Amino acid sequence: MTAPAIDALCIGNAIVDILAHAEDDFLAGEGLVKGSMRLIDEAEAGRLYAAMGPTVEVSGGCAGNTAAGVASLGAQAAFIGKIASDALGRTFRHDITAAGVAFPTACLEGGPATARSMILVTPDGERTMNTFLGACQELTPADIDGAVVASAATTYLEGYLWDPPKAKDAFRKAATLAHAAGRRVALTLSDSFCVDRFRDEFLGLIRDRSVDLVFANEGEIRSLYQTADFDTAVAAARADCRLCAITMGERGSLVVTHRETHHVPARPIDRIVDLTGAGDLYAAGFLTGLARDFPLAKCARLGGLCAAEVIGHLGARPEARLVDLAAEAGFAA
Amino acid sequence: MTAPAIDALCIGNAIVDILAHAEDDFLAGEGLVKGSMRLIDEAEAGRLYAAMGPTVEVSGGCAGNTAAGVASLGAQAAFIGKIASDALGRTFRHDITAAGVAFPTACLEGGPATARSMILVTPDGERTMNTFLGACQELTPADIDGAVVASAATTYLEGYLWDPPKAKDAFRKAATLAHAAGRRVALTLSDSFCVDRFRDEFLGLIRDRSVDLVFANEGEIRSLYQTADFDTAVAAARADCRLCAITMGERGSLVVTHRETHHVPARPIDRIVDLTGAGDLYAAGFLTGLARDFPLAKCARLGGLCAAEVIGHLGARPEARLVDLAAEAGFAA
Repeated sequence: MTAPAIDALCIGNAIVDILAHAEDDFLAGEGLVKGSMRLIDEAEAGRLYAAMGPTVEVSGGCAGNTAAGVASLGAQAAFIGKIASDALGRTFRHDITAAGVAFPTACLEGGPATARSMILVTPDGERTMNTFLGACQELTPADIDGAVVASAATTYLEGYLWDPPKAKDAFRKAATLAHAAGRRVALTLSDSFCVDRFRDEFLGLIRDRSVDLVFANEGEIRSLYQTADFDTAVAAARADCRLCAITMGERGSLVVTHRETHHVPARPIDRIVDLTGAGDLYAAGFLTGLARDFPLAKCARLGGLCAAEVIGHLGARPEARLVDLAAEAGFAA
Repeated sequence: MTAPAIDALCIGNAIVDILAHAEDDFLAGEGLVKGSMRLIDEAEAGRLYAAMGPTVEVSGGCAGNTAAGVASLGAQAAFIGKIASDALGRTFRHDITAAGVAFPTACLEGGPATARSMILVTPDGERTMNTFLGACQELTPADIDGAVVASAATTYLEGYLWDPPKAKDAFRKAATLAHAAGRRVALTLSDSFCVDRFRDEFLGLIRDRSVDLVFANEGEIRSLYQTADFDTAVAAARADCRLCAITMGERGSLVVTHRETHHVPARPIDRIVDLTGAGDLYAAGFLTGLARDFPLAKCARLGGLCAAEVIGHLGARPEARLVDLAAEAGFAA
């Protein structure tokens, strides 16, 4: 087996985030559940856009954020996701390419528009997402290039890929090809509402070893095992998953395998500006560490370093060069 | 004369800002002068966009930022500026309308694209702007609605309007109509490079009383009078201008008339994140104060309050409700 040319191949929904501040009253008037991600159609996207306040547009998507983080660490990253040939699609392609990520997926021609997530930021810093998937719904197995998958140390898949029906098949194809090439498959559970929608399928993927590594936060892992008790959820994850990395906010992260447990504290930070992307960037650091054969606790520490950078500013992609931060923090390249 | 229905009508270039971080080396390689605003054509805009890093898009333009500030103070604001019928134009219209600003200007059909300013933010926080004026070049006197101008307490014009040749005529028409209706005309000098390009014309507008009120910062007023000495520039401004408000960063602002001088200190702030929009928001507070017949020093204090809000976060339009901040600070509505 040749050494992987790509450290992490991230596959997910290609989304541009459209951010606006909103009061709690606005969420209540719209009947929105704070902190959730809701799927909407194009008409509702237009209606909500007209109703919401002034916006900021920035490329997003969980897997895209992770890929940008991996590249910022100086590692080789690739992204697969579907955009349309429109202005938002050009913005997405520019931004991920400018971040140093290979993006081989062809544009969709003649279908729905590029996906956007209208994110309402309430005064408490919480984010409520309203996502029009658009072109993402047209990601199909044909978009999964076997040679790219075979050359990636880890193929990383976001749980949100389970929302667009055809993307499930792309997800399964990527996992099968990665394993056939002797590579690792990772899944992030995306959010606890996503876990609610697809609990049995996610558990199936984990238990039949389609997935080697699971990323989750506390809410997601509790949702997966339908328990309010975190320790119960961790015990279940230890039994089911080959490797599971659980982020716990200010309490750091927990890495569990059948035999090992590592608790890595969070890095002290000056100020939390925006929590979006914390999990995505944790995964970026962890995956880069795995590609460099770091011990698991060191992978978790590198993940924590990346997460700390992204929560210090608005937006879910790194602003600082993570490779420099990692070097300063004593992580050898 | 009826009471004005609009507190401030702001006329300027309708621009979407496209922000990216950049190293000093990148500016040097591109031959860019740090802190300047450079006009570029569409081909150069495409080339530079491809070369620059990941971006954030947010509606901008000096006069647009000021109008958004006036509306956030709970006053009546209108904006005139030219956009195209494209994605950036829709973003601009959404954002300024969502900010509560009346925006009566029709879209340009069949001409150049909506203006964008590619802003490179270096690690020292300085911004270097590369602006493709596009549709702004098609702002003409036909876009100046006499009834709107006549109903505005102040018509506020940005110096950058002198760049697109046809917009000059729109500028002159607006000033003439405002004075015919017994209203006030204000000019912001925009930047010291803009003053360099149009010094004689700006001085002409001030000296022939086409303009009643001039907004400037220290660099701009020194550039206008071609002197390195601030006091010399202030003395010249006092002689030439009916009313001149000069922002001085952390030293606050200075308001001068032929007979009066008011120095208003800056408000203490926790942290400067981004200086963009400070002058625009100062003008928003000052103009709103004038519309409420505040004494000049109180107008300057309200301007300082608005400027302090906008430099506390990324982006040149207010995030907090300025009307609430003003009430907390003791400014009666």
